[in-house]
Amino acid sequence: MEAIAESSHWTYASSGVDRSAVSKALAALLESTRYRPPASHGRPVEAPGHYAGMIRVGRETLAITTDTVGTKVLLAEQMDRWEEVGEDIVGVNVNDLASVGARPIGVVDTILCSKPDPSRFGAIGRGLGRGLREAECALLGGETAVVPDIVHGVDLGGTAIGYFPRGRRPITGSRIRPGDVLLGVPSTGLHANGFTLVRRLLTESSIDLGRPRPGARSSAGEELLAPTRIYSRLADRIADRPEVHGLAHLSGGGVRNLVRLHPRVAFVLDRWPDVPPLFRWLQTMGSIPNSEMFQTFNMGIGFVIVAASQHLAETRRRLDRAGAPDAVLIGRVERGAGVRLPALGLEYEGYS
Amino acid sequence: MEAIAESSHWTYASSGVDRSAVSKALAALLESTRYRPPASHGRPVEAPGHYAGMIRVGRETLAITTDTVGTKVLLAEQMDRWEEVGEDIVGVNVNDLASVGARPIGVVDTILCSKPDPSRFGAIGRGLGRGLREAECALLGGETAVVPDIVHGVDLGGTAIGYFPRGRRPITGSRIRPGDVLLGVPSTGLHANGFTLVRRLLTESSIDLGRPRPGARSSAGEELLAPTRIYSRLADRIADRPEVHGLAHLSGGGVRNLVRLHPRVAFVLDRWPDVPPLFRWLQTMGSIPNSEMFQTFNMGIGFVIVAASQHLAETRRRLDRAGAPDAVLIGRVERGAGVRLPALGLEYEGYS
Repeated sequence: MEAIAESSHWTYASSGVDRSAVSKALAALLESTRYRPPASHGRPVEAPGHYAGMIRVGRETLAITTDTVGTKVLLAEQMDRWEEVGEDIVGVNVNDLASVGARPIGVVDTILCSKPDPSRFGAIGRGLGRGLREAECALLGGETAVVPDIVHGVDLGGTAIGYFPRGRRPITGSRIRPGDVLLGVPSTGLHANGFTLVRRLLTESSIDLGRPRPGARSSAGEELLAPTRIYSRLADRIADRPEVHGLAHLSGGGVRNLVRLHPRVAFVLDRWPDVPPLFRWLQTMGSIPNSEMFQTFNMGIGFVIVAASQHLAETRRRLDRAGAPDAVLIGRVERGAGVRLPALGLEYEGYS
Repeated sequence: MEAIAESSHWTYASSGVDRSAVSKALAALLESTRYRPPASHGRPVEAPGHYAGMIRVGRETLAITTDTVGTKVLLAEQMDRWEEVGEDIVGVNVNDLASVGARPIGVVDTILCSKPDPSRFGAIGRGLGRGLREAECALLGGETAVVPDIVHGVDLGGTAIGYFPRGRRPITGSRIRPGDVLLGVPSTGLHANGFTLVRRLLTESSIDLGRPRPGARSSAGEELLAPTRIYSRLADRIADRPEVHGLAHLSGGGVRNLVRLHPRVAFVLDRWPDVPPLFRWLQTMGSIPNSEMFQTFNMGIGFVIVAASQHLAETRRRLDRAGAPDAVLIGRVERGAGVRLPALGLEYEGYS
């Protein structure tokens, strides 16, 4: 088993993100916020550590997620390209809804900036619009704050709400059993995770973002900015199927995210596909161990479906029709705990 | 009629917030985001310019608002007091839900910071917890991002969702009629609006935040940081009454917010109570005209209820029981448009 702090050379902590300090601060924050309102204000659905908060209200169950695009915006600033990160506002949020099988209803965006720039905002809006169409949900509001004393450049974030159509229950992973299969849907690149590390690598290696990396066609900047693939539509198309036992968005934390679905089974990733060259390029640049790569980046697979093995062929057909003909078998569920990549000798115990 | 740009000396534009530049950037953003999803993903409720986005989904109607605490956090930083702004995360959001008569279900918070500080996060959490109890809703999730390259200090924001209990319809103000009365519920201070201007005033006048202003007991810093009063509970207690025609949270934009409720009636504020000394102190400090004060700050009244005049006494009794015995008659609705404060010779045409 590896702990975060053990991975050598380049780690997230050494790149400036100290996960344990964040955990401590978060624990302090959450100590006083465990208030349970009267039932007339909704009954929260317990799914500790999961991607989305869920609550039953009136005759519906809702899911809610909130996330920012993070430091990927700093790369957008360097490249002066804003459509991709605009689209990411939707992607980073609705993919978390997808992980509980909720259908997106709407998104609200929050843009903090040091100055309002109409051409930049226009580009962010075009990306946002594309994301909304891809996720099939409406923009229900937003907040734009011009706060030069708080923010350098731009911060982009949002919140997504979703619901469970009649008869559908939240998919929390509790039905995952040894013997289940793991299907992976490819990512479109880094999505919006790991950029603090990426930016440090790029700077230390004096990479010219305007030129392609060896073997690539588009510039490194464009390749790194590729918007997060939106998985909510395909998740919505399979979420009513009883053989779908778990769904996971591989965001920050990489393959460790699978542990969020079920703490008492082992996720064995014995068929992980070839890692896309972009990740290998970054890995080589920083001499980053596999252990750190797989817990920081999605490494080519952005979304995972856990399904009953006897329904593998059928699930693939459904994914094909739902816009994911590129879904591949990446592993299986065994007795045990944690996540393993046997070919690389990697084992992870928990989510963080 | 006054336009924003005409108000002399201290205006929001001269303090660093240029509203028209924000409007232009926002228009550019929204140009590409008008996508309407299929009805199976919810049917947005049209209430243009209103406080909350609303959408019908399944068998419920939901409301959603998103807002940040804004530059008030910079004062929190100066004072190193964080509970108040933690509570504001809830207040600034649920008060917008209150303005459409929605009952809060839950809040998600977003904290961006340059470093995670457990004692600061603990204080933010205590405030957040107080706000949740006051608004009777749960914390359904959150995002904490340590992004020193984007944020100086701390930014606090959030999103709130609410719903309309069975039989209740959104209160948009469309039923407001000439003859209706306006009841005002006092604020607890500045709430979380106007702080860019306030900070500039404090700096230029070299105010010591640790000492009380003349006539006050607590320090100026404490007085300015007083958390936003939470109006969602009282709004929830009266929102089922047919005589309640409109609800308004007087946030950024001050009394102009009333115009959001109905563009074709005049809101005549002919009984505005004495403006609290805190506002007068700031006004004198910057020689700020009344016109600017009333469109930047709440000036002592944080929430307004528009009700049928024959139900005035009954509405006051209900507010009394709902925790607002201090609600006062502040004006009435007439034929016309805009907002007037006759005693001060003020007239405003639109919201912004």
